[in-house]
Amino acid sequence: MNDKEIYMQKAIDLSLESVKNGGGPFGAVIVKDGDVIAASSNSVTSDNDPTAHAEVNAIRLATQKLGTFDLTGCEIYSSCEPCPMCLGAIYWAHIDKLYFANTKADAKKIGFDDSFIYEEIATPYELRKVKTSQMMRESAIKAFESWQNKEDKIEY
Amino acid sequence: MNDKEIYMQKAIDLSLESVKNGGGPFGAVIVKDGDVIAASSNSVTSDNDPTAHAEVNAIRLATQKLGTFDLTGCEIYSSCEPCPMCLGAIYWAHIDKLYFANTKADAKKIGFDDSFIYEEIATPYELRKVKTSQMMRESAIKAFESWQNKEDKIEY
Repeated sequence: MNDKEIYMQKAIDLSLESVKNGGGPFGAVIVKDGDVIAASSNSVTSDNDPTAHAEVNAIRLATQKLGTFDLTGCEIYSSCEPCPMCLGAIYWAHIDKLYFANTKADAKKIGFDDSFIYEEIATPYELRKVKTSQMMRESAIKAFESWQNKEDKIEY
Repeated sequence: MNDKEIYMQKAIDLSLESVKNGGGPFGAVIVKDGDVIAASSNSVTSDNDPTAHAEVNAIRLATQKLGTFDLTGCEIYSSCEPCPMCLGAIYWAHIDKLYFANTKADAKKIGFDDSFIYEEIATPYELRKVKTSQMMRESAIKAFESWQNKEDKIEY
């Protein structure tokens, strides 16, 4: 196996172990400069945390380890194509490259909502299954103005 | 103010306080049966966690408080239209209703990537800015088969 295959196999091994341990069938590994800096499986049910997907867990571990919210220069290997939550997290973390194995269609076949959430995100909010309404923008915009005017803000 | 306005004002107050404390201008509140069960602002820079958006933080707090990964019966009030990561988290948590104040266009105007990430999600993965490749599905699919065959799995 080449290096990329070794990293992906580690993500896959985590996904297999996770099923054995009662968790979801997903694993992810983050690599920087050839070193694995974080690896995790899905822990939604064991942690009672719906955000604890393998990719989000690995990103949290990597940022804690490096002491920064910015993972520029890192690659992520995920045993499955990331859902919109995890893809968003990958962008916010500024990860450079993403490798995945199973697809969102594969995930749909075994009962995971990834494809449904992709469809919902592409739907205007007024028509989504989660009933969504806008209110009080005139009050909330003050925080954005305050941010814009702040000279020492930390951008991310 | 009616109840909904009181909850949203709390989310907005959190967003204003967050800017004062050096964080991003975002707040979120989760309500169940008329009680505020979780409230948080964005803590990306203070926690070194790119996933620590106000909505994700509030969802984690609510699920820890209730001891379940399922927030069916809850509403979320966010001072800004959720980014794809947070919207995904709202769906995975099975929250029933979403209220927001500022829009993703407002967020774009003050330098946040929400709109860009929405565009990227709608783009085929081969064409996204984060270079994305598929590999080793034939190995990874074994974890999905193992999940499908597991009789005592906890679905989420």
